[in-house]
Amino acid sequence: MKLEEIAHKLGGTLHGDGSLEIDRVASLDAAGDGAISYIAGERYINQFKKSRASAFIVPKGLLHDSKPCVEVADIQLAFVTALELFASVPKPLGLMPGAHVDKGAIVGKDSSIYGGAYIGRSTLGERVKVYPGAFIGDDCNIGNDTVIYPNVVIMDGIDVGERVIIHGGTVIGGDGYGFVWDGGRHRKIPQIGTVVIGDDVEIGANCAIDRAALSKTEIRQGAKIDNLVHIAHNCIIGENSLLAGQVGFAGSVEVGRNVAMGGQAGVSGHLKIGDGVIIAGKAGVTKDLQAGEKVAGFPAISHREWLRVQKSLEKLPEMRKTLKDMAHKIEKLETLEEKDA
Amino acid sequence: MKLEEIAHKLGGTLHGDGSLEIDRVASLDAAGDGAISYIAGERYINQFKKSRASAFIVPKGLLHDSKPCVEVADIQLAFVTALELFASVPKPLGLMPGAHVDKGAIVGKDSSIYGGAYIGRSTLGERVKVYPGAFIGDDCNIGNDTVIYPNVVIMDGIDVGERVIIHGGTVIGGDGYGFVWDGGRHRKIPQIGTVVIGDDVEIGANCAIDRAALSKTEIRQGAKIDNLVHIAHNCIIGENSLLAGQVGFAGSVEVGRNVAMGGQAGVSGHLKIGDGVIIAGKAGVTKDLQAGEKVAGFPAISHREWLRVQKSLEKLPEMRKTLKDMAHKIEKLETLEEKDA
Amino acid sequence: MKLEEIAHKLGGTLHGDGSLEIDRVASLDAAGDGAISYIAGERYINQFKKSRASAFIVPKGLLHDSKPCVEVADIQLAFVTALELFASVPKPLGLMPGAHVDKGAIVGKDSSIYGGAYIGRSTLGERVKVYPGAFIGDDCNIGNDTVIYPNVVIMDGIDVGERVIIHGGTVIGGDGYGFVWDGGRHRKIPQIGTVVIGDDVEIGANCAIDRAALSKTEIRQGAKIDNLVHIAHNCIIGENSLLAGQVGFAGSVEVGRNVAMGGQAGVSGHLKIGDGVIIAGKAGVTKDLQAGEKVAGFPAISHREWLRVQKSLEKLPEMRKTLKDMAHKIEKLETLEEKDA
Repeated sequence: MKLEEIAHKLGGTLHGDGSLEIDRVASLDAAGDGAISYIAGERYINQFKKSRASAFIVPKGLLHDSKPCVEVADIQLAFVTALELFASVPKPLGLMPGAHVDKGAIVGKDSSIYGGAYIGRSTLGERVKVYPGAFIGDDCNIGNDTVIYPNVVIMDGIDVGERVIIHGGTVIGGDGYGFVWDGGRHRKIPQIGTVVIGDDVEIGANCAIDRAALSKTEIRQGAKIDNLVHIAHNCIIGENSLLAGQVGFAGSVEVGRNVAMGGQAGVSGHLKIGDGVIIAGKAGVTKDLQAGEKVAGFPAISHREWLRVQKSLEKLPEMRKTLKDMAHKIEKLETLEEKDA
Repeated sequence: MKLEEIAHKLGGTLHGDGSLEIDRVASLDAAGDGAISYIAGERYINQFKKSRASAFIVPKGLLHDSKPCVEVADIQLAFVTALELFASVPKPLGLMPGAHVDKGAIVGKDSSIYGGAYIGRSTLGERVKVYPGAFIGDDCNIGNDTVIYPNVVIMDGIDVGERVIIHGGTVIGGDGYGFVWDGGRHRKIPQIGTVVIGDDVEIGANCAIDRAALSKTEIRQGAKIDNLVHIAHNCIIGENSLLAGQVGFAGSVEVGRNVAMGGQAGVSGHLKIGDGVIIAGKAGVTKDLQAGEKVAGFPAISHREWLRVQKSLEKLPEMRKTLKDMAHKIEKLETLEEKDA
Repeated sequence: MKLEEIAHKLGGTLHGDGSLEIDRVASLDAAGDGAISYIAGERYINQFKKSRASAFIVPKGLLHDSKPCVEVADIQLAFVTALELFASVPKPLGLMPGAHVDKGAIVGKDSSIYGGAYIGRSTLGERVKVYPGAFIGDDCNIGNDTVIYPNVVIMDGIDVGERVIIHGGTVIGGDGYGFVWDGGRHRKIPQIGTVVIGDDVEIGANCAIDRAALSKTEIRQGAKIDNLVHIAHNCIIGENSLLAGQVGFAGSVEVGRNVAMGGQAGVSGHLKIGDGVIIAGKAGVTKDLQAGEKVAGFPAISHREWLRVQKSLEKLPEMRKTLKDMAHKIEKLETLEEKDA
């Protein structure tokens, strides 16, 4: 692709030779002849100078020497667009040898079902990809353009939207964890609900998202979930919310839109987390949170308050010492006072 | 099924038309014509009134209007029984096409081995189900009525009891984490022990339960384990103990009976956790716990003490201020005292 | 194998009948006729006396009664060597029926590819084992003697060294978690980097190690990773470092050599952890750590300081009380002082 074409597609301003042929995107360090790289800001200027890339995407105003450049308003978005320009789009494969597809299954056109995939009596949209070892049970609906990576498990009756990406080993629709004590044993509460995954959701590797007891567990449109996340039965994860690695939820938590949770954070059961809440990594949320709250720690408190407590904590051993000294001084004062009296 | 038959099977009292045909169980919100729903208590009374279910299971004494009802002593148990009444029991499938079963394997009658399952030279009981992508190595014993969901891995030489349920992606019998430093490198300690899973155990999705170094890792009868739980080599999890999502154990921990652990809690190696201990979510246990203890926090302390500390913690910044004020006051008193003297 | 041969191979001193036939290694409790066991130290002396093993490996100087013994300088290493002596080395199987191997794949001699394994257009070394349900994409390199257990997922373009062991269900090379906000939605940043796994690395079950955005995620030679560990894109884990179960990393963390992290610990993004650092279990690291530091807690501080803070924390409720008492005393003194004045 010619550099002028790239400049045009990024909506940027071309500096230098537009006829330059570019065949890939690479980091400043790794780039060589034929690659376009990008510089995110001033602090990469030395790497930029040393880089052997043929051309660069640069943020507006950043000086660009004599190297061929495309100057753009939003460097992050331009970079993503450039990556997309060079992404290979593999041809659809259809049903590959060794794929198990139930006679009652419906698979839309231009889909790719790899050998070793197992698809029950379910409906798959168009341009869906199901990799080897992935399992889709009966009565599922999988939307157009969805990608299901190797060894993903989607149990019976699950709905998955369009353009969803599910990474390797993730299990969707396992039974929720529900038991009732029956004298001498835990008796299983049958989990007959489902899971509904909205459009444009991405779910990382080796996550576990349980089916609801009676109704549905929901991951709503645009939510992005990192690896090894545990979502218990009846939870709702709101639109565009972000869950970092190893986050966990007890049952029936309702998470609003645009919530962000740091890694290894957890939420107790039956709580409501308002829109736009930010939960720091490792936090443990034990009560409802209002829209826009920012919390940290366990039990989670306001982030500002948590910082104050942490600062005080460091001083705690010193405080104990001060307290002892003061007790001594007071005692002395009291003795003197008695003498006076 | 007729409502009077349901009332009989739940051991409840029928109110209304016993000839009513019921074909499923549903939540108050989702229920429609033909469904029976249930009301757990007074606080669901509004949902109950709006519900379009044909009939209801209600706890003793709760008013039931004119709607057809079955009044029961224990609403939770009755509800579970109702769910079981309507659970479909699929016909056994035998060995399905694409299932790999070793010539030396023994599979009991009425078992279902799905295409894509892999079974080594092992012995499976009757009515066992092994889903696609599940792996069972050599020299395993799998008890009657056990269900092994897709992509579960059971390595060589593992014993699994009867009526066990293992959800998707869980790995049982991987090597324990054991190394010895040999001058310049970590040398692997071969892990030649096994794992023994008792009857009626349930294990969630994407867990990891390691084989013992020499002897056995044990999950005893009736223990219920949620998703993404890590159990290291040589651990024993006692009868009917409950481990919530993302719980983790270092090696050689002995957990008693009827222990309950909240999500993301962890236990250090070689500890003994007594019967009936309750460990709060996110707790980190660093010493032995006596039967009946209730602990929280990290390092875990008595739950009551933890609550007191947490309450004090919030006051910590304020305490620092008070301490400063008091120091000032004492100084002033000391100055005055000097003057007096 | 004769006991004298074992003594020779362990570099130990034989006591008793060297012609004794030994056929396995077992724990003191489980050992019987034909087994050799070992005693790690004085505190196992009672188990040692009761053990029915035919022979024992004992540390230098520990009394050995009249039982046949091999006395060694390093009991741990000798025991590992003994285990290795009796480890069975299965014959290579070649391509088993039901294995899917791409026409373009290259598989070295004496490798074993089990039925249900899926190998794309990749290069595998000699004596490699790939178990059922494991997936290896295109353009991977897998070194000699590497073992890939069931249902492991290795995505396209990943390099794995020699003598690497990857336990069941682990996913290597899933997309890193990277999005950029594009007005109303999270837009995915394509992850076009790779993962490089060094020689002699061991990775536990159900881990997730993401591919880099542009360059590479690295697990360097000899690192040992336990179960359910999450390693985000662009991380580097240094030589011989140890990561216990459920450890997690945000993106672009650089971990030095010989670092040790306890279970459930986590590290924030873009940090540098120096060589030989020790991070306690459940710690949350939020800033760079210098070589040799030993930290605990969240946010992680020096281990010694953390112990002091924890000790003070227990006293916190008491401190609050003392503070109140003192305030009262000061008030009293002030009143008296006023009277005096």
